[in-house]
Amino acid sequence: MTNERTSILGELITIGDELLSGRTVNNNAAHMGHHLRLAGFQIRWTTVVGDREEDIVAALQRAMERAPFVLVTGGLGPTEDDRTNAAVASALGTPLRRDPESWEVINSHLKKHNIPMTRGIAKMAELPEGARRIDLTRPRAGYYMNPADKPLFFLPGVPEEMADMLKTFVLPTLKKRFPEQITIRSQVLRVFGLRESEIAERLAELEEKYSTVGFGYFPHFPENRVSLTVQSTTATSADAILEEVVEAVVQELGLYVYGRGDDRLEMVVGRSLMDNGRTLALAESCTGGLIAHLITNAPGSSAYFDRSLVAYSDAAKTSQLLVSPDLIAQHGAVSAQVAEAMVRGLKRESKPNIALAVTGLAGPTGGTPQKPVGTVFLALLSDKGLRTERFQFGGEREKIKLAAAYTALDWLRRAIIDESFFDAG
Amino acid sequence: MTNERTSILGELITIGDELLSGRTVNNNAAHMGHHLRLAGFQIRWTTVVGDREEDIVAALQRAMERAPFVLVTGGLGPTEDDRTNAAVASALGTPLRRDPESWEVINSHLKKHNIPMTRGIAKMAELPEGARRIDLTRPRAGYYMNPADKPLFFLPGVPEEMADMLKTFVLPTLKKRFPEQITIRSQVLRVFGLRESEIAERLAELEEKYSTVGFGYFPHFPENRVSLTVQSTTATSADAILEEVVEAVVQELGLYVYGRGDDRLEMVVGRSLMDNGRTLALAESCTGGLIAHLITNAPGSSAYFDRSLVAYSDAAKTSQLLVSPDLIAQHGAVSAQVAEAMVRGLKRESKPNIALAVTGLAGPTGGTPQKPVGTVFLALLSDKGLRTERFQFGGEREKIKLAAAYTALDWLRRAIIDESFFDAG
Repeated sequence: MTNERTSILGELITIGDELLSGRTVNNNAAHMGHHLRLAGFQIRWTTVVGDREEDIVAALQRAMERAPFVLVTGGLGPTEDDRTNAAVASALGTPLRRDPESWEVINSHLKKHNIPMTRGIAKMAELPEGARRIDLTRPRAGYYMNPADKPLFFLPGVPEEMADMLKTFVLPTLKKRFPEQITIRSQVLRVFGLRESEIAERLAELEEKYSTVGFGYFPHFPENRVSLTVQSTTATSADAILEEVVEAVVQELGLYVYGRGDDRLEMVVGRSLMDNGRTLALAESCTGGLIAHLITNAPGSSAYFDRSLVAYSDAAKTSQLLVSPDLIAQHGAVSAQVAEAMVRGLKRESKPNIALAVTGLAGPTGGTPQKPVGTVFLALLSDKGLRTERFQFGGEREKIKLAAAYTALDWLRRAIIDESFFDAG
Repeated sequence: MTNERTSILGELITIGDELLSGRTVNNNAAHMGHHLRLAGFQIRWTTVVGDREEDIVAALQRAMERAPFVLVTGGLGPTEDDRTNAAVASALGTPLRRDPESWEVINSHLKKHNIPMTRGIAKMAELPEGARRIDLTRPRAGYYMNPADKPLFFLPGVPEEMADMLKTFVLPTLKKRFPEQITIRSQVLRVFGLRESEIAERLAELEEKYSTVGFGYFPHFPENRVSLTVQSTTATSADAILEEVVEAVVQELGLYVYGRGDDRLEMVVGRSLMDNGRTLALAESCTGGLIAHLITNAPGSSAYFDRSLVAYSDAAKTSQLLVSPDLIAQHGAVSAQVAEAMVRGLKRESKPNIALAVTGLAGPTGGTPQKPVGTVFLALLSDKGLRTERFQFGGEREKIKLAAAYTALDWLRRAIIDESFFDAG
């Protein structure tokens, strides 16, 4: 997928010593690159400079030479090392002067909060001649210039303020200035239970069929994401193609697709429990409460979530879940028998529609050749039946917990929507 | 704190379309900036370019003009869009030629794994004349050049490979080349229970006393971190000053400092339980299993962690923790009385040395003027006594859960080491 011929290639300058020293990761650059791209623009160069005025001047001059538009973030604040305004004036050969709109906004803010004016704050109203303040109501720095019809945007380094101005001012302004832009639409599908290579294999034919659509595969342990990107000259056709290809991919991957965009597995499970009027109880050993933690991240989860008995010790399994010590002695706490006994005990204690138990070995010690670290048993009991299964997860302790918890969530999802769930047990 | 006069200011070029499009955040740049700084070097400019050869050439030529050393990452792989080698040859005016060492390493790897040689893989052995391969045993790309005594490092974009080569090759080579470098030592202290402004206020005098030491304050919700940075011409004096100032800060902040460097609160609590031969049981309502999840992240936690009864519903509080329905009706599930009843019920069920219960309102709904969202009660019962307290946390649901869980962990830590913990109850 390439759109070099049709995209306008801009340039990005991010300012701040903290970016060079690694104290701060340059998330702003990633955010801007991503949202510009979705709007059909691209960044060709990004430069990071510190708080030296000469470096800001040099970066800005070079960017203006080679790019049709330039975005700059950082260095607009009141302290000594905020030098962007002076650098811009120097790079453009224009004087700094007091901007009446900025002065007004800043002054009324200070008055309202009873803060005295300082030389540093006053500096924030000293803008290069020709600058147009972006936010006329709140005391947030940021301005726009357009010398020789080349848009230059100067945004604050504060991520939320930058993101807001990018969305409400920069992108609309760029679209007006470069109306011939193509439109990009994209959708992310969230997949659990297939490896990245398995997904790519299943989608190979569709990739061939929709050769103008960008297929991206991104592992986000323990799930995978598929991003689909469509470019078109009109929004209508981009939307139509995207809808068609998303439909085809969902058809191909079936129940492995659990959500889209920002969906989270625990939220999807929660909505499903809620919509189907089911209640849930858990018995956790190796996940140590993680499944319950994820489930209770969903607002309103108290409507369907009853309890989790995190029975870490054998004594807890016996006293809380009525698992007989003999059974533990005979099969070990990490066994299908104990997982089943846990889920049956849980069902007696609570009266949920769905009861799920997990026992396993998160390591790093305690593994044997028969049951190595990463061995996990799940048992799910509902009015439709019982399913018990053994899993082998890889990685370190925290990864094993996460893989087991996600697998449990995926079982809950499937137990509700998949008619054949208990047949597989 | 400034070290502009003494530091060698290098330049960084990171290559890859995915960095410009925002698909990947530039963590490599932050990692390199940070570790160079700790070794006494600094980055003055960072440039991000995509996979266009002409842009890589331009960025490299400019960097070589103005910087005493240059680090480049990315574009060394086998695919069509890996163009760094060709760009380097073009920028330096040297031919590409097959590097015998690279050819040897790559070939023996292919043979061992039965992979056929391709044109793309062969390209990885075509290095600019004068290049010296960094890793002579594994098939990881990366080389070093030193034209006109100016060190140039070309590292893979894969974070682990880059980090490994930075540590084992780049930093030692730079230190040899620039022996007059100053040394930087730093330590991070982890603080829980004080706001950033409170920490800064308490340390104001020390900041003044140790004016050459860099004091940095970083909020990492729900904790705060203090970083102390010392620069000196010798490692011995840097170490000595750092030790002295760390000692002074710990003295000033007292028990609010729970750890150093990469310590995590749950690991510190786990070590403390282990070292003191204590066992722990939890009764969780609003934290929904999060405290247990954190506690069980520590390897070996089964030695001291018995169970967590995540009693989300009122019915679970009654059946699992023997909290009387009358008490809940009278005071509400979110109350000091119910927290105390939960911890007493827990102590009867399990026999831990320390029992802790939490009940609260994570929201977003259910708040009242008397008990707004964010109201949380903790109760801790040990052989030394009982402490119950009400907290008011801010923010959204997941932040409230996290703040409550960390506060609970901090109580566990203090209950073991702080003689006056129960007096405060």
